[in-house]
Amino acid sequence: MDRIRRNERLAAMTRILVESPNKIFTLGTFCEMFGAAKSTLSEDIDILRGVFAQFHLGQLDTVTGAAGGVRYRPILSPEDAYAAVKDLAKTLAAPGRVLPGGFVYMADILAQPEIVSRMGTIIASHFYRTEPDVVLTMETKGIPIAMMTARALGVPMVIVRRDSKVYEGPAVNINYLSGSGGRVETMSLSRRAVKEGQRALIVDDFMRAGNTARGMVDMMREFSVTVVGVCVLAATSEPTKKRIDGVKSLLVIDGTDETTGTALIRPAGWLAQAAEKAKNA
Amino acid sequence: MDRIRRNERLAAMTRILVESPNKIFTLGTFCEMFGAAKSTLSEDIDILRGVFAQFHLGQLDTVTGAAGGVRYRPILSPEDAYAAVKDLAKTLAAPGRVLPGGFVYMADILAQPEIVSRMGTIIASHFYRTEPDVVLTMETKGIPIAMMTARALGVPMVIVRRDSKVYEGPAVNINYLSGSGGRVETMSLSRRAVKEGQRALIVDDFMRAGNTARGMVDMMREFSVTVVGVCVLAATSEPTKKRIDGVKSLLVIDGTDETTGTALIRPAGWLAQAAEKAKNA
Repeated sequence: MDRIRRNERLAAMTRILVESPNKIFTLGTFCEMFGAAKSTLSEDIDILRGVFAQFHLGQLDTVTGAAGGVRYRPILSPEDAYAAVKDLAKTLAAPGRVLPGGFVYMADILAQPEIVSRMGTIIASHFYRTEPDVVLTMETKGIPIAMMTARALGVPMVIVRRDSKVYEGPAVNINYLSGSGGRVETMSLSRRAVKEGQRALIVDDFMRAGNTARGMVDMMREFSVTVVGVCVLAATSEPTKKRIDGVKSLLVIDGTDETTGTALIRPAGWLAQAAEKAKNA
Repeated sequence: MDRIRRNERLAAMTRILVESPNKIFTLGTFCEMFGAAKSTLSEDIDILRGVFAQFHLGQLDTVTGAAGGVRYRPILSPEDAYAAVKDLAKTLAAPGRVLPGGFVYMADILAQPEIVSRMGTIIASHFYRTEPDVVLTMETKGIPIAMMTARALGVPMVIVRRDSKVYEGPAVNINYLSGSGGRVETMSLSRRAVKEGQRALIVDDFMRAGNTARGMVDMMREFSVTVVGVCVLAATSEPTKKRIDGVKSLLVIDGTDETTGTALIRPAGWLAQAAEKAKNA
């Protein structure tokens, strides 16, 4: 093999790191791959760290210790996060999205990998410090955003099912009050899905009163799993008091404008504040 | 801003291209971002294309025409694809995965973004040439792999629902024969989910007789959408005659070994043949 130049090596390393977010690569792996010395690769990593920081392209961390190495973390800066959520709010506020019952049609948005991936990165950026072991969601519509959050965090995603008859082996079932209609329903999670002592981040697409999320929190108690946070793509501002505390949402739905048939939807206040604070820093 | 060196520019461009698979970036975008001339960036792209090819890191395409530019396509080489699927087969053949009824527990695998992303890239690599506009799947377990296939292809993912009472506006419902039990069930798809004349790739986690996929094909006929292919992560070898023709699967389940309680599972023949052919080329 020809000797590889630094710029080629930097491009190849970037591609490898970026395609496996949060995976730790030892310098040894790269030494072998490119036939270069550790000192050379250390310099490479320093260059990459600088470039990523300069262009707000995420974070390159050096992890020390026996299992140490280098890893890439997708991160959106507070300004970029606010701008992306504001863009999405504008899309969702377009006429024709309000369905009977006051629901906002979001399925087409949740279907777009690029948008969902960006929202997942925003959620991950906020929750890295809570060190979740898994991202937990309820089928169905929450799965894409939970998957992309899990990808950014580098952890598995676990799906709670509405149906206890699915074929995933022994399961724990709990009853919860369904959001729409106030009926008692059942949610089910495979016994093998999470382990005692793990830390879970709950991610979903939508929250009104928080009954489903409350059910997932109760479910995690059955598994002796700590819930480190609850984050949804969109929450309604009413009721202001949700069934669980400390819920983060990216978007807030204030209602629907009956005269135009459009949803009143905006980025959550904490995103605006973080962007403002970063701008003034 | 300081003048940016080529190696920094190459790293930044790689990160931007890789995080938005199949999105076309004009040279102008990069010119503006880095304050460099088009001729310089053309050279950059040539270097990147060479590096990606040399290390099997995916494909960099130059797209000509009015909407032209450069795009990154995640691609796994036939040898890498075969090796990855073989690894997965080995994981799934571990004792303790066979559930009552002969089902193989795969939920933990479908929960891991890195594995699912790799499998999605393998499916995308095979189906790029069919130019799908959407990836279609049936809730629930197929969603992660469909999402990652859609991400690699750069198209939206559309979810067919089992429940016609969900709030996604007017929907088309069709009846189909359910796989387990032979009951008639209903699947439902929002009228806005796909458009007449589009091309759909059907992706799911598992196939036995192909009843669910048959239902999705029938559903697409109702929408005047062309099905360009059907691909599943794992299919049973029995029945050999599925309810639809030309199904691709990455894994084949030949049955379960009653004495050891393990699944007999292997990479599909077409993957082995492609890897063999590439090796001899």
